[in-house]
Amino acid sequence: MDIARRLAPRFAARAAGYDAAGDFPVDDFADLRDAGLFGLMVPTRLGGLGAGFAEYARVAYELARGNGATALVFNMHASVTGALAGVPDVMVEALGVPEHFFAARDRILADAAAGRWYAVAMSERGVGSRLSQLSTSYTREPDGSWRIKGAKSFCSGAGHSDGYLVAARSTADPSLVSQFLVPAGAPGLTVEPTWDALGMRATGSHDVHLDLTVPEDALVGAVEGLALLVAQLMPHWMVASYAAVYVGVARAAVDAAVSHSRERRLAGLPNVRSRIGRADAAVAAAKLTVDEAARRVDEAPGDEETNRWVWRAKYLAGTTAAEVAASMLEAAGTSATRRGHPLERLYRDARCGSLQPATSDVCADWLGVAALGGDPESDGTAPRW
Amino acid sequence: MDIARRLAPRFAARAAGYDAAGDFPVDDFADLRDAGLFGLMVPTRLGGLGAGFAEYARVAYELARGNGATALVFNMHASVTGALAGVPDVMVEALGVPEHFFAARDRILADAAAGRWYAVAMSERGVGSRLSQLSTSYTREPDGSWRIKGAKSFCSGAGHSDGYLVAARSTADPSLVSQFLVPAGAPGLTVEPTWDALGMRATGSHDVHLDLTVPEDALVGAVEGLALLVAQLMPHWMVASYAAVYVGVARAAVDAAVSHSRERRLAGLPNVRSRIGRADAAVAAAKLTVDEAARRVDEAPGDEETNRWVWRAKYLAGTTAAEVAASMLEAAGTSATRRGHPLERLYRDARCGSLQPATSDVCADWLGVAALGGDPESDGTAPRW
Amino acid sequence: MDIARRLAPRFAARAAGYDAAGDFPVDDFADLRDAGLFGLMVPTRLGGLGAGFAEYARVAYELARGNGATALVFNMHASVTGALAGVPDVMVEALGVPEHFFAARDRILADAAAGRWYAVAMSERGVGSRLSQLSTSYTREPDGSWRIKGAKSFCSGAGHSDGYLVAARSTADPSLVSQFLVPAGAPGLTVEPTWDALGMRATGSHDVHLDLTVPEDALVGAVEGLALLVAQLMPHWMVASYAAVYVGVARAAVDAAVSHSRERRLAGLPNVRSRIGRADAAVAAAKLTVDEAARRVDEAPGDEETNRWVWRAKYLAGTTAAEVAASMLEAAGTSATRRGHPLERLYRDARCGSLQPATSDVCADWLGVAALGGDPESDGTAPRW
Amino acid sequence: MDIARRLAPRFAARAAGYDAAGDFPVDDFADLRDAGLFGLMVPTRLGGLGAGFAEYARVAYELARGNGATALVFNMHASVTGALAGVPDVMVEALGVPEHFFAARDRILADAAAGRWYAVAMSERGVGSRLSQLSTSYTREPDGSWRIKGAKSFCSGAGHSDGYLVAARSTADPSLVSQFLVPAGAPGLTVEPTWDALGMRATGSHDVHLDLTVPEDALVGAVEGLALLVAQLMPHWMVASYAAVYVGVARAAVDAAVSHSRERRLAGLPNVRSRIGRADAAVAAAKLTVDEAARRVDEAPGDEETNRWVWRAKYLAGTTAAEVAASMLEAAGTSATRRGHPLERLYRDARCGSLQPATSDVCADWLGVAALGGDPESDGTAPRW
Repeated sequence: MDIARRLAPRFAARAAGYDAAGDFPVDDFADLRDAGLFGLMVPTRLGGLGAGFAEYARVAYELARGNGATALVFNMHASVTGALAGVPDVMVEALGVPEHFFAARDRILADAAAGRWYAVAMSERGVGSRLSQLSTSYTREPDGSWRIKGAKSFCSGAGHSDGYLVAARSTADPSLVSQFLVPAGAPGLTVEPTWDALGMRATGSHDVHLDLTVPEDALVGAVEGLALLVAQLMPHWMVASYAAVYVGVARAAVDAAVSHSRERRLAGLPNVRSRIGRADAAVAAAKLTVDEAARRVDEAPGDEETNRWVWRAKYLAGTTAAEVAASMLEAAGTSATRRGHPLERLYRDARCGSLQPATSDVCADWLGVAALGGDPESDGTAPRW
Repeated sequence: MDIARRLAPRFAARAAGYDAAGDFPVDDFADLRDAGLFGLMVPTRLGGLGAGFAEYARVAYELARGNGATALVFNMHASVTGALAGVPDVMVEALGVPEHFFAARDRILADAAAGRWYAVAMSERGVGSRLSQLSTSYTREPDGSWRIKGAKSFCSGAGHSDGYLVAARSTADPSLVSQFLVPAGAPGLTVEPTWDALGMRATGSHDVHLDLTVPEDALVGAVEGLALLVAQLMPHWMVASYAAVYVGVARAAVDAAVSHSRERRLAGLPNVRSRIGRADAAVAAAKLTVDEAARRVDEAPGDEETNRWVWRAKYLAGTTAAEVAASMLEAAGTSATRRGHPLERLYRDARCGSLQPATSDVCADWLGVAALGGDPESDGTAPRW
Repeated sequence: MDIARRLAPRFAARAAGYDAAGDFPVDDFADLRDAGLFGLMVPTRLGGLGAGFAEYARVAYELARGNGATALVFNMHASVTGALAGVPDVMVEALGVPEHFFAARDRILADAAAGRWYAVAMSERGVGSRLSQLSTSYTREPDGSWRIKGAKSFCSGAGHSDGYLVAARSTADPSLVSQFLVPAGAPGLTVEPTWDALGMRATGSHDVHLDLTVPEDALVGAVEGLALLVAQLMPHWMVASYAAVYVGVARAAVDAAVSHSRERRLAGLPNVRSRIGRADAAVAAAKLTVDEAARRVDEAPGDEETNRWVWRAKYLAGTTAAEVAASMLEAAGTSATRRGHPLERLYRDARCGSLQPATSDVCADWLGVAALGGDPESDGTAPRW
Repeated sequence: MDIARRLAPRFAARAAGYDAAGDFPVDDFADLRDAGLFGLMVPTRLGGLGAGFAEYARVAYELARGNGATALVFNMHASVTGALAGVPDVMVEALGVPEHFFAARDRILADAAAGRWYAVAMSERGVGSRLSQLSTSYTREPDGSWRIKGAKSFCSGAGHSDGYLVAARSTADPSLVSQFLVPAGAPGLTVEPTWDALGMRATGSHDVHLDLTVPEDALVGAVEGLALLVAQLMPHWMVASYAAVYVGVARAAVDAAVSHSRERRLAGLPNVRSRIGRADAAVAAAKLTVDEAARRVDEAPGDEETNRWVWRAKYLAGTTAAEVAASMLEAAGTSATRRGHPLERLYRDARCGSLQPATSDVCADWLGVAALGGDPESDGTAPRW
C-alpha cells in the first residue's frame, strides 16, 4: 500500500503522455519491478510479498489513482500469480494433479517475485472472455509437447510482458479448456498492434497470434481442463480485480474535478458542489463494496455469498466510474475537455469499466437471479464463461 | 441484533394495519420494552445493553426491515439515550458542568433501561430542525424552575412516549438553546394529532404544544446552551441514525419485490431480474456505508473524517431508499400498488428518507464543500442547524 | 379545450377529498356531462363535438391538470366512443359487418352525446389487459342472446357508469374475443369494491362480476372476434390515451412545486430552481411527444410510424410523470408530504402511469425491437395483448 | 433538407478520418459551398435560399447525423448570416442605425450566398462566451478605422473561414461591446493551433490572436454597442442552434448502435433492446423540442415563451446526447470502443453538448427561475452573457 501510494503520483505525471501515444507505460512497469510489486501475490517463502486479495484490492485502487491503464495491466499479472498462489494444496491433490505441479507452480511464482511478469491471452474476437467458446486450439504432440494455434485479442501488455498465460481448447476433446504459459520470445508468437481504443489506451491490449509449440510442463496445473474449473471457483479474479481499478479511476476523477474547481474558482457554484458531493459519496460506497468483496474472498473464496459481493463490486465499480467521470467533466466544464487535461483522459478510461466482462448489464442480471433465489451461473440469459 | 431479527417479522406482520390507520405501533413498542431494547444504548452498569453506535445501526437496520416507522420512533429514543451516554465525562467536566449532572444523567439512563422511553420535540413549523432558528422559549423562574412556551412539530411518538426531550431558546439570552426533559403527563403539554402523511404514517409525528413549568433538574446537562454544541459535536445522532433505518426500508423493498416476483412467476422476465439486481447492489453498498460511518463514530466521534462518512451515509440511505423502492414497484407491477401490499407502503415510506433533515440536496452540498477543502459547517448555502 | 381549462380548477379543488376517501368523483362527472364532454368523440351529425384524437389528447391533458383520476376514467369512455366513431366505414364493410352495425353504432354514440357514459371491463386478475389471455367467456344462446360469465378487475368507474364495454372469449371458438355493451343496471352484474390503491384512488377501478344475458345487438360491431383486431389496428386507444393524462399529472406536479416554493420562499435555493427547471423541460418534451403522436393518429391511424410515436408517448409520459413528481416532492420538502397537500397526491398518482399497460419496460422493449428493424408486435418477450 | 440528407452520408464516411487527425473537414465544407448552403439563411433577393430558423434547425440536424463537427462549424456561419438577415428593418431604424447599414448588411449576405463563410471569434479564455466580460478591446482611430487587440479561444473553423465575426469592448466606453467583420487574410490576425479536444475534434476551434486595424465599415451594424443587445434579443442564436446539432449527434448514436447490434447479432438481447428503445424515445422527444423552439423563433423571435422553448431545447439536446451516447456504447459493448468505430467518436462528440454555453446546469437554473415566475436574465446565479 505504501509503495503503491508512493508510485501513484509518478504514474499520474506520465499518464497523459502514454495515453496520447497509446504507448505501453514502460516506466511505470520498471517502477513496479523495482518496487518488487510483481511478487505482490507470491508467498513470502518464494520471495514475494504474500499479499491476500484484500491487500491486492487496496494496492490496485492506489495504483489506479495514478494511472488506470497501468493498474489494469498489473491486474492481469496479479490474477495469474494470485490464482496460482491461491489454489489450496488440498484441492490440487483432490483433483489428481501430479506431484510435479507444485514445483512448476513454485517456479512460476518465484520468477514473478524475481521480476518476471505475465500477460493473459484469453479473449478472442467475437467471443470475448467466454472460455467455453474459444477457438484457439491445442494438440498434444507425440513427444509430449503442446502445439497451440489461434489468435487472441485484448491481450493487455502484449509485446512487453515476459510471458503469456494462453487459454486454448483441446482438439482431442473440445470440452477441455486448458492454460499454458508461453514465454515472450517464443518463435511463432507475434503481436499485432491493433489496440487503439477510446480509453485505457496505455494497456497495449493488442492481438496476439499463436502458431507454436511449448514443452510439456508449460501446461499450467499439469492437468488438462482446469481453466473452466478455476474460472468458476475463483470468479473474483475474472470479475472483481477490475473493480478495484475502476474505483481508483473514479476517485481520481473526483480528485481532478476538485483540483480543477479550486484552480478555476468554481468551488462556490452550487451545481459544482452538488455534483462533487454526490460523486464523493458514490465513490466512497463503491470503494467499501470492493473492500468488502475482497475481504470475503480471503475469508471464504468461491462461497456463494462471497461471489454475490464480487459481482456487486464489479457492477458498482463499472457504473459508478462511468457516471462519476461524466458528472465531474460536467462540473469542470469545457476547459477540462482539452486533451492532456486529466479529466479528459479519466472520462474515457472510466467509460470502459462497465463494458469489460462481465458487463454491467450481465452483472445486473446475475445479481437479480441470485436475489430471486436462482442459480446465477446457470439461469442467466447467456453463458457467463 | 438477534433480538431485532426476531422482532422484525412480528413488526412486518402488523405494519400494514398501523400504516392504514396512521396509528402508533403500540404492540411493537410493547415488544421493544419487553425485549429490553429501550436500554440498548444504556451502559451495562446502569442496567442497559451497553451498545455502541455501530451496534445500534445494525439493530435499527433490522427493526426497519420489519417496520420503518417503528424503527424511526425508536431512533429518536436511541439518540437521546445514546447522546447522553456518549458524552465523555472529561468533556462534561471541561465544560464546567456541575457535579450533579452525572447523577441526573444516570437516572435518565437507568429509567430507560427499566423501560421508560423518550420522544424528541425539536422541530418547529417553518424552521425544521435548525436549532438556531427555534421560537419555543424558556425562562428561568425565581424558584429555579423553567417555564417553557411554544409549539413543536414532527414529534415522533407524541402521545405515547414516557417523556419528551424539548429544545428551547432562552428569553434572557437568545443565543442559548437548551434541552429539557418533560414527563409525558405534565400539565400544559398537549398533543395535537396533526400527523397524516404520505409515508412513515405510524410514527405519530404530531404537533406538541407546550405551556408548562418543569423543575430545575429538568435541564439536560445542567448547563444552559448545550444543545447547539452537542449538535455540532455529534452530528451522527442528527443525521446518520436515520440512515440505518432507511437502508433497512430499502432492503425490505427488495425482499418484497423478490417475494412478489416469485409468487407471480415474474422471475424469468429480464427487466425484473435487472431491476432487482441493480437494487440489490445499491442497497448492499448503502448498508456498508452506514456500517462504516457507525464504526467510525464509535472510534472517533466528531472527527472530521467521521463526519464525512456520517453525511455520506445519510445521503446514500435517502437517495437509495427512494430510488430502489420506485424501481421495485415498477418491477412488481400494478398489482403491488393495492393498499395493504408491502411494496405500496414501502414505496411511500422510502420516499421520506431524503426529505428528512439533512435533506439529500443539503447533504450533497455539505459533501461537496468538504471534498473541495472548505468547512461544510460554515460554507454551506444555508445554516445547517 | 376551453371547457376543459374551465373545469380543471374545479376538479383540482375537489381532488384531495375524493383521493382521501377513495370516492368516485361524482361532481366532476356531473360537470363533464353538463359541459357535453361525453360527446367529445361523437360526430357532430349525432350531436357530439366531433373531436379528433389530437383534440382529445389536449382535452385529457387539461382535465388531468385538475384531477388525473377523473381524466383517467373519462379516458375509458373516450376510447369506447372514439374507437367506435373512428372505425372507417369502408373497413367495416370489408370485414363483412352486417348493415345493422351502423345503426347500432350510431345509437351508442348518440346516447353518449346525450349524456350517457361507458366504462371498460377488460382487464382480469393475473392477465392484465392482454385480450388473448382472457378467461371471461360468452356463449350464444338458442334465441340469439349472449350469456356472459366471468370477473373483471381494474374497471374504472365501476358502479357509476351508465354502461360497460365487456371483453369476453367465445366458448365455441376460444380464438374469438368479442366485446359487448352491458347496461349498468343489468341483473347479474355486481360491483365488488376492491379498489384501494396507492394512486389514482378516485377512479373507482373496482372488480366487476358478470353472470348475465344480453340481447343479440349488445355485440359491439355485430360480428364476433373484432376485439383483438381493433386492439392491433388502434393501439393508440390502448396505449396513448393514458399518455396525455399522465403528462397532465406531471405538469400539475411542476405547478404545485412552483406554488409551494413561492409560498415557502424556497425559490432562491439553487437546488429547488434546478429541480424545477429540469422538470419543466422534461414535461414540455413529453407533452410535445403526446401531441405529435395524437396528430399522427388523426392523419394516419395504425400506420407503422404512427404506432412508434404512440409507444414513445406512452413510455415518456409514464417515466416522466414518476420522475418529475418524485423530484418535485424533493424540491418542496417534508411539508409537502402531509396528506391533503397537492404534491402528496400527485406523487402517488404519477407513479401509476408507467405501471399501467403497456408498462414502461414493455414499451422500451417494443421501441427497441422497432428501432432494430424487427416487428414489435410479434418479436416481443411477451404477448402484447 | 434534401441537400442536407444527401450530404450527410458523405460527411459520415469522412468523419473518422477528420476526427482522428483533428483536421478541419475541408471536403465537407467544399460540399457545403457547392450545394449553396452558405447562403441558407440569406434572403432569396440576395441570392440565398431564404431559410427560416425552423428550416435551419432541420438542416443542422441532418448535417449533424453525418458529422457533428461539420454541423457545429456550419452553425457559427448560420448564426452570423441568420442574425444579420433576421434583424427587422424597423428595429434597425428604431435604434438609429445609419442608412448605410442596409447596404453593408446586404453585401455581407450576398457574399455568403456567393460562397463566402464566416467564423465567430467571441469566446475568450477564462470568460467563455459572456460578452460582458470580454477583454479584447477596440479603439477608434482618428481616420475612423478600428484598432482591435486581443485573443480569442474556441474559434471554430479558425484558419479555414473567409472571415471572422470578432466581438470586442470599447476602450473609450467599456460598457460598449461591438462586433467587427475581419477578413481571413488580414495582417495581424494569427491562428494558434490549440484545439485538441475530447470531442468535436474536427471543428478546428483554435485560438485567434488579433492585433490589427479594420476599416470603418467593418463595424457590424454600423453602430457601436449592439452585440449585447442582439445577444439578449436573439438568444436562439446563442443557445438553440447548438441544440439541433446535438440532437442529430444523438440520433446518429442510436443509428450506429442499431447497425452494430444487427451486425453482431445482439438484437435479441433484452438489455440491448431496452437501451435502444429508451434512447429512441428520448431522442425523438428532444428533436420535437428543438423543432418546436425553432418554429416559435420564426413566429415570435425574442418572445418570453419562445425563449423558454429555446432554453428547453438547449438543455434537452445537451443532456440527451450525452446520456444516449453513453447508453448506446454500453449496448454495443467493448468492440465499439475501438477508434474508428462510429460510436467511439459519437460518444466523445455527444459529451460536449451540455458543456457548451449555456451549460446544462445553467439552462436548468434559467428554466427554474422562469418557471418560478422570476426573470431568468437577471435572477440567475451568474451573468448569462
